[in-house]
Amino acid sequence: MIDADLKGIDSHGIARLPGYIRLWQKGRINPSPDIKVVHETPSTAVIDGDNGLGLVVAPEAMKYAMFKAETVGTGWVAVRNSNHYGIAGYHALLAVANDMIGISMTNASPLVAPTFSAERLLGTNPIAIAIPAGQQPSFVADFATTTVANGKLEISKRKQQPIPFGWAQDKDGKPSTDAGCVEQGGALVPLGGTRELGSHKGYCLGSIVDIFSAVFSGANYGPWVPPFVSFLEPTDDPVGKGIGHFLGAMRIDAFRPAQEFKNEMDRWITRFRNSKPSAGEAQVLIPGDPERIMYLARIKDGVPLLPAVVSNLQELAVQFRLEMPETTG
Amino acid sequence: MIDADLKGIDSHGIARLPGYIRLWQKGRINPSPDIKVVHETPSTAVIDGDNGLGLVVAPEAMKYAMFKAETVGTGWVAVRNSNHYGIAGYHALLAVANDMIGISMTNASPLVAPTFSAERLLGTNPIAIAIPAGQQPSFVADFATTTVANGKLEISKRKQQPIPFGWAQDKDGKPSTDAGCVEQGGALVPLGGTRELGSHKGYCLGSIVDIFSAVFSGANYGPWVPPFVSFLEPTDDPVGKGIGHFLGAMRIDAFRPAQEFKNEMDRWITRFRNSKPSAGEAQVLIPGDPERIMYLARIKDGVPLLPAVVSNLQELAVQFRLEMPETTG
Repeated sequence: MIDADLKGIDSHGIARLPGYIRLWQKGRINPSPDIKVVHETPSTAVIDGDNGLGLVVAPEAMKYAMFKAETVGTGWVAVRNSNHYGIAGYHALLAVANDMIGISMTNASPLVAPTFSAERLLGTNPIAIAIPAGQQPSFVADFATTTVANGKLEISKRKQQPIPFGWAQDKDGKPSTDAGCVEQGGALVPLGGTRELGSHKGYCLGSIVDIFSAVFSGANYGPWVPPFVSFLEPTDDPVGKGIGHFLGAMRIDAFRPAQEFKNEMDRWITRFRNSKPSAGEAQVLIPGDPERIMYLARIKDGVPLLPAVVSNLQELAVQFRLEMPETTG
Repeated sequence: MIDADLKGIDSHGIARLPGYIRLWQKGRINPSPDIKVVHETPSTAVIDGDNGLGLVVAPEAMKYAMFKAETVGTGWVAVRNSNHYGIAGYHALLAVANDMIGISMTNASPLVAPTFSAERLLGTNPIAIAIPAGQQPSFVADFATTTVANGKLEISKRKQQPIPFGWAQDKDGKPSTDAGCVEQGGALVPLGGTRELGSHKGYCLGSIVDIFSAVFSGANYGPWVPPFVSFLEPTDDPVGKGIGHFLGAMRIDAFRPAQEFKNEMDRWITRFRNSKPSAGEAQVLIPGDPERIMYLARIKDGVPLLPAVVSNLQELAVQFRLEMPETTG
């Protein structure tokens, strides 16, 4: 959670803690899971997270994928019976320090309608891929397979502004510019936004994340994925256990010597970063740049927290009889 | 090529043959390549395509990935020194008959500008993923990582129609609705179309395809990828050999018993196909449906060819002294 806050992904930061605690209090998260390998081959495994929090389960799965990669070049681990796992990129980055490419994805509770559908069948199903470089910082792609996350609609709603065409649709499946359309029975839409701009491709991506995370592992998929919030109940006809993740690690030197690969990555990154920017733009960014820039600022100046988040944390401190440090802002 | 035509992907069908022959005549494609494994681990390999046509090289690479998957659960093969490989989905589908998931991607000559860039640095870099089901047809995603392929701009141009906002940009990197903007120094744009609708995510995807296909293998990447047409010359400062592909095969039973997985895929597919359609739409489609429907029609009624394509093929028949069948249309 702190890593998310430092990288500016506040929606997955410490603000999530009260929600995780409410799920635990309702018995929907196991705080001391017995995480087990239930099936494996030299390059693959399925792990049962014993209903633990994904933040705890996914790093164990990633370590197992890296162990497989050490042995046979790559490792691929599907996880069932897990819960929300925070930012996808955190898990993918675990591989980079070991000269491996890390891959991380998870399914999530349904909020997204496939192209041509009026129903919510997929989560925002993020994908992260972290690729080491040499002198340059790592390439880190980490993105939801929708045009935007739900948080952006909430911001527009608070500002009483319409949302752009292509972010969401109403309950009949029609594209909408009303920031409240999702909570009124509508849905987020896959990356692409509209059929004309390729939303069927975002639908493919979100579906692949769902299938790799949950059909491989035996977790719930599609509309059966349990909600992440304590005030919504899971479906009473589950098709699997908990939510699913999929973690992968590929040893660079399973393909070519690591230093050679990193030198080429440096050239790739430098060429792209120094390309001619569009009119009005300062520079072309490399995936991972925005989070790294934010991290460097926040690790120095601290993480600004909204007053509501601070007061939630203070309530938790009282509830659990913890010392709460003085706030500075 | 015939498989592409049968599936309605005419841009990659027999219409490509004259172009491939021109590249061969200029010595840019080796018609009898000595395809070699140059590096490997139990789950990975790098293959040198000896400058063969990708249509020939990629199936060999996929077969090698499947051989690895037989042995250790998954197989991942990066290919260098190759050329255009046709439709990505063809290679991915080779795995499905063996109860494996097939993954296929390739880089391509630069036609796409990253978000915030005015330069063409990436190809349309397609990804295909084919997943077997039981009673239901396979799930087959096969898509370029741009909003649209260049062919759609050509159709709009021929009809003298503007293109939608989000398909392409002009030479200064500004979004354009002019169907001629790409040939006037502009570029296609990544899936998402504009920054506001998530084009940075499409840029991530196209980059990952480029890196997996070419930085893993030692092929040319980014703006150095050689052109697929004989009237454009390759760069004189290559960073690798030919173009690159990346093929993967995952044995289903490396994760769970194949029949169990296929039963769940049937439930996934049925639930999605039967979801409530958006107002005005007939049905929610499963990735692979449009190509399968087209295939069933064309395998019965034949493939309609444009008169220009027929006359190109007739010229080739004369040139190579082949019998040309009578045309019916």
